Amino acid sequence: MILPGRAHVGHILRYVGRPLVWLLAWDVAVTAVWYFVGPGWVEFPALPLTLLGSAVAVYLSFRNTTAYARWWEARTLWGAMVNASRTLARDALTLLPDRSLAVTVAHRQIAYVHALRMHLRRQAPWEELEAHLGTDELKRLRSVANVPNAIHADTAVLLPESRPDPILLATLARTMSDISNAQGGMERIKNTPLPQQYATYPAIFTHGFCLLLPLGLVESLGLYTPLGSTVAGFLFLALLQIGNDMQNPFENKEDDVPLTTLTRSIEIDLRDMLGEHHGLEPVKPVDGILW
Amino acid sequence: MILPGRAHVGHILRYVGRPLVWLLAWDVAVTAVWYFVGPGWVEFPALPLTLLGSAVAVYLSFRNTTAYARWWEARTLWGAMVNASRTLARDALTLLPDRSLAVTVAHRQIAYVHALRMHLRRQAPWEELEAHLGTDELKRLRSVANVPNAIHADTAVLLPESRPDPILLATLARTMSDISNAQGGMERIKNTPLPQQYATYPAIFTHGFCLLLPLGLVESLGLYTPLGSTVAGFLFLALLQIGNDMQNPFENKEDDVPLTTLTRSIEIDLRDMLGEHHGLEPVKPVDGILW
Amino acid sequence: MILPGRAHVGHILRYVGRPLVWLLAWDVAVTAVWYFVGPGWVEFPALPLTLLGSAVAVYLSFRNTTAYARWWEARTLWGAMVNASRTLARDALTLLPDRSLAVTVAHRQIAYVHALRMHLRRQAPWEELEAHLGTDELKRLRSVANVPNAIHADTAVLLPESRPDPILLATLARTMSDISNAQGGMERIKNTPLPQQYATYPAIFTHGFCLLLPLGLVESLGLYTPLGSTVAGFLFLALLQIGNDMQNPFENKEDDVPLTTLTRSIEIDLRDMLGEHHGLEPVKPVDGILW
Amino acid sequence: MILPGRAHVGHILRYVGRPLVWLLAWDVAVTAVWYFVGPGWVEFPALPLTLLGSAVAVYLSFRNTTAYARWWEARTLWGAMVNASRTLARDALTLLPDRSLAVTVAHRQIAYVHALRMHLRRQAPWEELEAHLGTDELKRLRSVANVPNAIHADTAVLLPESRPDPILLATLARTMSDISNAQGGMERIKNTPLPQQYATYPAIFTHGFCLLLPLGLVESLGLYTPLGSTVAGFLFLALLQIGNDMQNPFENKEDDVPLTTLTRSIEIDLRDMLGEHHGLEPVKPVDGILW
Amino acid sequence: MILPGRAHVGHILRYVGRPLVWLLAWDVAVTAVWYFVGPGWVEFPALPLTLLGSAVAVYLSFRNTTAYARWWEARTLWGAMVNASRTLARDALTLLPDRSLAVTVAHRQIAYVHALRMHLRRQAPWEELEAHLGTDELKRLRSVANVPNAIHADTAVLLPESRPDPILLATLARTMSDISNAQGGMERIKNTPLPQQYATYPAIFTHGFCLLLPLGLVESLGLYTPLGSTVAGFLFLALLQIGNDMQNPFENKEDDVPLTTLTRSIEIDLRDMLGEHHGLEPVKPVDGILW
Repeated sequence: MILPGRAHVGHILRYVGRPLVWLLAWDVAVTAVWYFVGPGWVEFPALPLTLLGSAVAVYLSFRNTTAYARWWEARTLWGAMVNASRTLARDALTLLPDRSLAVTVAHRQIAYVHALRMHLRRQAPWEELEAHLGTDELKRLRSVANVPNAIHADTAVLLPESRPDPILLATLARTMSDISNAQGGMERIKNTPLPQQYATYPAIFTHGFCLLLPLGLVESLGLYTPLGSTVAGFLFLALLQIGNDMQNPFENKEDDVPLTTLTRSIEIDLRDMLGEHHGLEPVKPVDGILW
Repeated sequence: MILPGRAHVGHILRYVGRPLVWLLAWDVAVTAVWYFVGPGWVEFPALPLTLLGSAVAVYLSFRNTTAYARWWEARTLWGAMVNASRTLARDALTLLPDRSLAVTVAHRQIAYVHALRMHLRRQAPWEELEAHLGTDELKRLRSVANVPNAIHADTAVLLPESRPDPILLATLARTMSDISNAQGGMERIKNTPLPQQYATYPAIFTHGFCLLLPLGLVESLGLYTPLGSTVAGFLFLALLQIGNDMQNPFENKEDDVPLTTLTRSIEIDLRDMLGEHHGLEPVKPVDGILW
Repeated sequence: MILPGRAHVGHILRYVGRPLVWLLAWDVAVTAVWYFVGPGWVEFPALPLTLLGSAVAVYLSFRNTTAYARWWEARTLWGAMVNASRTLARDALTLLPDRSLAVTVAHRQIAYVHALRMHLRRQAPWEELEAHLGTDELKRLRSVANVPNAIHADTAVLLPESRPDPILLATLARTMSDISNAQGGMERIKNTPLPQQYATYPAIFTHGFCLLLPLGLVESLGLYTPLGSTVAGFLFLALLQIGNDMQNPFENKEDDVPLTTLTRSIEIDLRDMLGEHHGLEPVKPVDGILW
Repeated sequence: MILPGRAHVGHILRYVGRPLVWLLAWDVAVTAVWYFVGPGWVEFPALPLTLLGSAVAVYLSFRNTTAYARWWEARTLWGAMVNASRTLARDALTLLPDRSLAVTVAHRQIAYVHALRMHLRRQAPWEELEAHLGTDELKRLRSVANVPNAIHADTAVLLPESRPDPILLATLARTMSDISNAQGGMERIKNTPLPQQYATYPAIFTHGFCLLLPLGLVESLGLYTPLGSTVAGFLFLALLQIGNDMQNPFENKEDDVPLTTLTRSIEIDLRDMLGEHHGLEPVKPVDGILW
Repeated sequence: MILPGRAHVGHILRYVGRPLVWLLAWDVAVTAVWYFVGPGWVEFPALPLTLLGSAVAVYLSFRNTTAYARWWEARTLWGAMVNASRTLARDALTLLPDRSLAVTVAHRQIAYVHALRMHLRRQAPWEELEAHLGTDELKRLRSVANVPNAIHADTAVLLPESRPDPILLATLARTMSDISNAQGGMERIKNTPLPQQYATYPAIFTHGFCLLLPLGLVESLGLYTPLGSTVAGFLFLALLQIGNDMQNPFENKEDDVPLTTLTRSIEIDLRDMLGEHHGLEPVKPVDGILW
């Protein structure tokens, strides 16, 4: 996640840089042809530009709204995971008759959220999990398809061990199910990209529109065409790029939902609730980016 | 579900191919009449085009938003089914006193999701169900209207058999009800298409608009009319087509929510939770399409 | 609910037929005055038309979105009723100690959904209810304001009769409350029409806009005015009409949420779950319309 | 709430009457200056008008959507109150061992909804409450800040009196909490008006835009300016006024959510459920308005 | 939160004051160059302005909708906190066997909401907490990362002390979890600003658009350019500023969700429910602003 205050102009230009340079070159070329060869070859009247522009805007506006909705839902699901982790630890400490089991549950939840982060980013979790889980369990986990779900199911098996009152067990089971639901939602966003039609077409149409822009503008703008056309193209390319950035929030990119920060924060909160002296610090941003 | 990276231009042209060819032919015909017969016969001033264009955009924008909302709700309901299936298996293994019953419940849930997939795609589930259910039950299922609902109700009858604590039975009953709600939501989307007015009118109006386009553009575009008019028509036809693709997500088409993949994934997760050596692999995409 | 594939052009023309004929007559009249009397009397420059058109589009777009949201919420609430009915029957059969009471509960739920359908459509339910309820109860029901709510409350009184475990009774009470909530939501949509400002103004403004259209177009379209103006007017009138159709989903019209189909389907599912040989068939569409 | 079928043109003209008259006067004045003094003094070219118009439309469209969402949420929260009131009465009658306590709970809930209506409309509830509550409680209520919340809390204290099974008490506590949540949502809407920026700016900008309209139109419309400009201004002023009407739904105005009708309906339903002969009638509309 | 009726023109001008003055200066400069140096140097034809204007409107409209949604979600989460606080106090008084414990729980909840307000505004809570919590606990709280969460966890540990029935303990645990969820939602909004692309780009593009405005308008507006261009710029700058104001609702600014008012109101309600004579008054607005 990019923190506020970092998006200076240099960053922005780099942001849509390469297509912008190509666009500028094309704009200059069109203007040159118009100036040296003659207007008849490149003029393109205004009406279709406006029509195309509004159709492209429908695509981009829909895609941006949807991409942001995906990003924000991903963030909200991780928020739900933070809440459910705290509730699981609090309920384990309050409702289970056996405190040592409660401590185990809280630590397993920490292992779970780290494993979930690795799972969503398609990274191998084994090194990180060694600190939290026994070697037997780690070995077994290597043979399952969904590591965090397996850790979660193993935690559930532990809960009845201290023979809590059934109603309290049911309360914990509900929190376990909230955790399951949050994980399922994240996997849905990860495994179901925006339908290809919405992902690819806006790119094609926006690029096509930017190619047509100088043809339509050169008659009225003349030698100012590269300026006007590049500025307008920049806006449309930036709108396109924002959608690209936001649509997949678990890709280990700078626009990701900051999973490392969130899982660290869960770990700190849970170990604070256990009264441990952990010495952990919240994740610091690197070059204005929170991972 | 079409996977990212497959929508090359050839695919896109095929996508709205036939209407596009007809549109091009019409555009050429209009331009030819204008060129050979004279402008008076085909010119159509600009204003109504813009007005029509914005009204058509209202239709298409509304329909695309709604069609995508249907698709995404269908996907979300299947996500809820994944979560509830995991929770049912986990709770059965954790809360039921009798492990063999828990195993039965998990296997019946696998049968249930396969039956639900077949039910939504209007396919006969009998062959697939034979692996999971007894012949008596299969025979009885043939006489009911809603096969997955009947399997689900039969599972519910089994739950009290091992005489669990009532509170744990109530917890399982809640998960059973989550499953029921997810199925009901999928049936709602399947059985209630987008109202005809929203489904048919945009098609008629978009096609009509594409027919008027060259008439309105020929005066200013001249011989470039087929190009400009076809490009603009392509955008509108593509917007129309996207809505068509997305609005019905359970039709066994390439744009479907990938039911086969999802039910396979549920089967793998549940059998992993039971500790079975199943040897099942996630569904692989075929030609870039996940079914 | 109109089924897909029925909206041929004839149906659509009938759909906005009468206002369209009037509009055409007016367009022809305006064009005739312009042609025979002279342009000075009827010309109306373009700018206000575009401004008015965009303001009218804001109204229509808002109203269509809202009307569809009402329709879809109504459908979703009936979906919730389907789910809750199945859950009530399943839980009654599974959790109540007394099967004959469970059968009564399921049959009363069937009576309830039929009574609710009649209540929403403001029809007398007595004939249909005679098959399901005793004469004493029917007599008492005639004196209450809200018949389905009274049937529902009477069912609730039966539940504790077989002295189930309190937790299972509480589980059933929750399902009863889901049913109450769904009914309350339907009554909200039925009793609270779209605020008059949103219902009436779009109609007035759209009609007014259609009257101004030929005045603004006649200068540039000339003798083509009736064509261009009627086509544009058709789009706007159709947008207006769609909102009218969708906004009130319980009016016994062809655009209704198909209550008869849904309540029949609930009856079939519940009687299937009881193992009854009912011989009921799903409702068939009549002339492409599902009631 | 204004009932359908009342918004005849007279009502609508009265609706935005005063600003419309001022607008007409201004339009005539501008046209007169243009006609007698000369065009140079008042002409204003078209471009900024279109730009301003689209910016104003963004404001008005956002505000209308938000104002309606507030109104509909208010209505939905009262719908939830209707549902929860029925559920509370039904559960009290079904789950409490002591029927006389159940009757008291139902009557106190009736007092509660009346007190809540008065609280939201900032009216003194004492007269109405005398029929339902004892003098001791009424005296104590005069010293608290939130009367309905205090009545609600007192009801909660009564519930454990007949020593119901804890699970049934917990079920009732959940319904009590649903009631609390609905009240809290209504207070949120009442106490948090639309942020001033959204409430005030659209008014200023719409009025400013209406003042500029004749300046921009007079050149092309000439003597038709008052007509065209007033019609366009009417649309924008009506859009503005709709937002004003809808944004605050608990103000004892004709556009309010019909609280009197809803609380009366709750009272009838609950007393019907108790089997009382109350002789109450639903509230009748007065001059087409339901209060 | 700014109360209604305060946004007089002076306030509004101050609102976007500085950029507006710069804009006016630029507009005057452009007009002066055009007038004295000659049109050739500054004219910029109309088409790209309209295109840029609509792209900027897409940005601003999306950002305003999202910023308001954040603000309103923040307010709704605090509404949920009000509801859950009342429910916690009511349930503690009703369901716990020990009234003195219930009083402690209610007072701890008051401390909790004050600590949460300070936490969200990044203020030191120690002075305010001294009135509510013991010195031992305060000392321990100084070493944890999340003070309100630690207070909340400590409250949870107290609940089982009076050995309530497990089901009632579970009911309280659910309310505790609602409180946790509300806090987590607020922290999500606080810690996750609008993605930089949506926060920074609209500002750059709006400012850039305002710079281009007089260049595009000077040809047709002539000496009126500063007026027309500044008025249009004002609308766009105000739209931009509204988004800035609303997007971060917990910053101790005048547009904040009124946390001080809400926490005071929770304190009054809870102490009223305990029957205390607290003498507290609701927070009064200061200069029309509620903090």
